[in-house]
Amino acid sequence: MREVAVIGIGQTVIDEHWDKSLKELAGEAIIDAMRDAGRDYADAVYVGNMMSGSANHQQHLGAYLSDWVGLHFTEAMKIEAACGSGSSAFRQGVMAVASGEMDCVIVSAVEKMTDSPLPEITSELATAADADYEAGMGVSFVALNAFIMNRYMHEYGWKKEDFAPFSVNAHANGAKNPKARFQSPITVEAYTKAGMICPPINLLDASPVGDGAAAAVLVPAESVKLSRRPMVRVAASAAATDSIGIHDRRKPLWLTAAELSSKQAYKQSGFSPKDIDFFESHDAFTIMAALSLEAAGFAEPGQGPRLANDGDIFPGGKIPVATRGGLKARGHPVGATGLYQITEVVQQLWGEAGENQLDGVKTGMSQNIGGSGSNIITHILSTR
Amino acid sequence: MREVAVIGIGQTVIDEHWDKSLKELAGEAIIDAMRDAGRDYADAVYVGNMMSGSANHQQHLGAYLSDWVGLHFTEAMKIEAACGSGSSAFRQGVMAVASGEMDCVIVSAVEKMTDSPLPEITSELATAADADYEAGMGVSFVALNAFIMNRYMHEYGWKKEDFAPFSVNAHANGAKNPKARFQSPITVEAYTKAGMICPPINLLDASPVGDGAAAAVLVPAESVKLSRRPMVRVAASAAATDSIGIHDRRKPLWLTAAELSSKQAYKQSGFSPKDIDFFESHDAFTIMAALSLEAAGFAEPGQGPRLANDGDIFPGGKIPVATRGGLKARGHPVGATGLYQITEVVQQLWGEAGENQLDGVKTGMSQNIGGSGSNIITHILSTR
Repeated sequence: MREVAVIGIGQTVIDEHWDKSLKELAGEAIIDAMRDAGRDYADAVYVGNMMSGSANHQQHLGAYLSDWVGLHFTEAMKIEAACGSGSSAFRQGVMAVASGEMDCVIVSAVEKMTDSPLPEITSELATAADADYEAGMGVSFVALNAFIMNRYMHEYGWKKEDFAPFSVNAHANGAKNPKARFQSPITVEAYTKAGMICPPINLLDASPVGDGAAAAVLVPAESVKLSRRPMVRVAASAAATDSIGIHDRRKPLWLTAAELSSKQAYKQSGFSPKDIDFFESHDAFTIMAALSLEAAGFAEPGQGPRLANDGDIFPGGKIPVATRGGLKARGHPVGATGLYQITEVVQQLWGEAGENQLDGVKTGMSQNIGGSGSNIITHILSTR
Repeated sequence: MREVAVIGIGQTVIDEHWDKSLKELAGEAIIDAMRDAGRDYADAVYVGNMMSGSANHQQHLGAYLSDWVGLHFTEAMKIEAACGSGSSAFRQGVMAVASGEMDCVIVSAVEKMTDSPLPEITSELATAADADYEAGMGVSFVALNAFIMNRYMHEYGWKKEDFAPFSVNAHANGAKNPKARFQSPITVEAYTKAGMICPPINLLDASPVGDGAAAAVLVPAESVKLSRRPMVRVAASAAATDSIGIHDRRKPLWLTAAELSSKQAYKQSGFSPKDIDFFESHDAFTIMAALSLEAAGFAEPGQGPRLANDGDIFPGGKIPVATRGGLKARGHPVGATGLYQITEVVQQLWGEAGENQLDGVKTGMSQNIGGSGSNIITHILSTR
């Protein structure tokens, strides 16, 4: 297997893009990535997306987008793993290049959520849960996460305000990222007073709906000769699933699929948690930020909030998270999120993270969650 | 790249399965394939499906199905390329095993179309076309194919009844396949008198809506030691796209993506059209059967119907097509169709095609079309 490098990235601002269609958003990110990479050709286009069929009445995004951006006749398909779609598409791109089957793959990921009214989007998001035993019973994604958070607080003795630092850190970082959905920092007080959605989850625990697209260009590392940037190689790519319904999991407070894919990623890369300089976790809800830190090996079970309250997750801390705002503040266009996370890791490693730039980082991890923990994809990228 | 072999397959009957859910159908095919292969483990499950999000209110089929069949924690994702989803998923499975990343992949493909009322399904199918310039203008898939067929008849001088042999052959073969949606042969007279849907396409030109699932187990060929069956290896796997809207194509009467992926497949395998013993083409409409024969190199441009009228497409002919009924009679559960085609090629090569068995076949080709020709995936399987 060949080593794979990322040589170009693109991201749109995440927003309510009333003035742009799905293909315009995706096209913008793809063309930015191709310009960034200096490439006008690819062997394949893999598109991560969750719900274009229902939300935008357009399936078949592979052919649709390769046509739109002028990559005529190029092999293309869409890859879906709910909110884990973006990194699943990236993983397929990595495999295609690593295998020698392809010399250049464009991975694109897009979600245009504001074409549908909000109640419809809530129903569409619920298709990531178990249709028979969760969504069909009227349980939304916020409710599923509320179940987990409630039990977690009860089991480990954390209070609501102990989750504030996740949201405060995300918003502080998002405010410095021009692509982020939210551009304002928040206070602990604002967090504790935020309107309740589904107890104990309030508005500042939850990531927002938004439209966005990201893209990345992948080539064999051996083909990268001269570059003005440090070479970012994909040191690990791994995925695992868990029962789709939380009621079916033996340990509903533990992200088994995150543990499995993290361990696999550490094994592939030869790195351990202490080698990871920063962690783009899937903070769709603050509880998921806590659980991810634990399952990825950065905190003991039940101790994710400890890291947050000790300041370890902030820039300069032991394991900075959500360095460009995370899902909470950068935004969560569901099928695109995983590729935002990965391209943010690349930005940090290139030293191109602007006001969010961390000092001296060489290895970053991204972890993307589909469903309430049922499909978790972990990538480690490194310049080492 | 390692050579890849198919060691087990599964198929459900294609029907209106009111009594079975999507997961029950998919699970039946997966478990049959695993039993057939003698495996109870896989490194990944790739699921081909087009519209479970809208038709069944269930996305995230990767995690959903691996959980359901007991492949707990296994990496999984869904792959979508409209009606080309099944073979796109197969292609990703081939790449994963060929690369050495995985030693056993289960490819599954499923579509449960009858959960939605027919007008909704027609709208959902139209999401495979261009939302802005085709579907959004009210043009259904039948209409798109009618445009092409009309022009083709005008351009090359074929009459309506010249397309009859495609349908007659498909139904004759389907009547001998216990998994087929339609179990009755038809006559030329029935074809010419069938009710018109959208001129010149009538009911016996068009493939039916149906529910079905297929599955296949892929392993490295080198790992197959003792087997009671001839070893079926994947001799070629290739894909190409074309403009999603037919108005955008330079040659709307030519399947450029089929030509490109066929040529790539011939190059990969070292075979030429004369080495192909039979051809599972994407006869969603009779016109597509004709165009596929031409683009894949079995007939000159405009001469597909000639092969049919000369009897060359029937069992025992030069290039038998739809040997188990094709999309027309076996049925067309859209996202699953590509994997039905591939598993039918495997059945023929194993000598397990029952009453449809062709004599002495060693190499078969399947070609799966997404949209009206915008994403075409070609596989060659062989025991040679």
